[in-house]
Amino acid sequence: MASGEADNAPKVRVVLQQCLGARLQTQPATDDTPSEFVQISRGLVVYICFLKAASSDMVEKIVKTVLTVRLSETDGGKLVSILDLPGDLLIVPQATLGGRLKGRAMQYHNIIDKSAGFRLYGEFTELCKSTVNSNSISQEKNCVVQCGTYGNRQVLEIDTNGPYTHILEF
Amino acid sequence: MASGEADNAPKVRVVLQQCLGARLQTQPATDDTPSEFVQISRGLVVYICFLKAASSDMVEKIVKTVLTVRLSETDGGKLVSILDLPGDLLIVPQATLGGRLKGRAMQYHNIIDKSAGFRLYGEFTELCKSTVNSNSISQEKNCVVQCGTYGNRQVLEIDTNGPYTHILEF
Repeated sequence: MASGEADNAPKVRVVLQQCLGARLQTQPATDDTPSEFVQISRGLVVYICFLKAASSDMVEKIVKTVLTVRLSETDGGKLVSILDLPGDLLIVPQATLGGRLKGRAMQYHNIIDKSAGFRLYGEFTELCKSTVNSNSISQEKNCVVQCGTYGNRQVLEIDTNGPYTHILEF
Repeated sequence: MASGEADNAPKVRVVLQQCLGARLQTQPATDDTPSEFVQISRGLVVYICFLKAASSDMVEKIVKTVLTVRLSETDGGKLVSILDLPGDLLIVPQATLGGRLKGRAMQYHNIIDKSAGFRLYGEFTELCKSTVNSNSISQEKNCVVQCGTYGNRQVLEIDTNGPYTHILEF
């Protein structure tokens, strides 16, 4: 079988970290206005990068995986999904996850172009929001989904009880 | 060519995040003693996971890559290595990076056994320390290398001006 690297190459890369709280800048300060931030309490920080071959038909599966994978620890030490914890979600666009080492520098040739990435990021965040908002356990606890601004510098603070970092590729 | 997945599978996985400061618990509290922490100022957080095929002869290359890849931003906006910034280093053992999704759970069959991982982690941290300590720019600025305790829960706080998250595989 002729199996090139491109066939196996990931199209979307996600890094998940558990947090006790996190805060992300959504707009940098200007001369006239201070910085704007969003923040979450206990929950999941989702860093996401769309590579060139990513497409809209993948979004539903990625959202389902991120929201149902059992990586969040209950007070009793049991691993459950972020929907079952329930917890908050902070989504951080992170194109650097698509970098490849070349010599002493990273190259980003495989990252999707900005307009397609912006669209996919919007679809991903909207589906995360609607799924969490239709989950009764999340709503009972007033869980929120917050998002970074695509294309901005992601000024982030994160406080963890163990980040429990996982990489998912799609 | 018969090229199985095992041939291409990574042996060591590293995630790098830039930070303005970070603090990591090295010993949890006991009934008699409070928690112990290490902390760094501006620099690099290095999460590392050794998989089954990892070996000592890889350590030198990994250390060299982590310390010389140009991912740290100077005040002037130029990307330089952590040795040239110069900045601190916080090394966080993170076996979860070796997880693979199976259904709704992660499996960790590919992670190296604990004693071999402990040994490789020690070699990696020692070589990072000796390299930073022999770098005159780092020493002029009193840069430090701090490490988490292998096998412990990594209670971590990180403050960034953009984590600029990168994945390296060896």
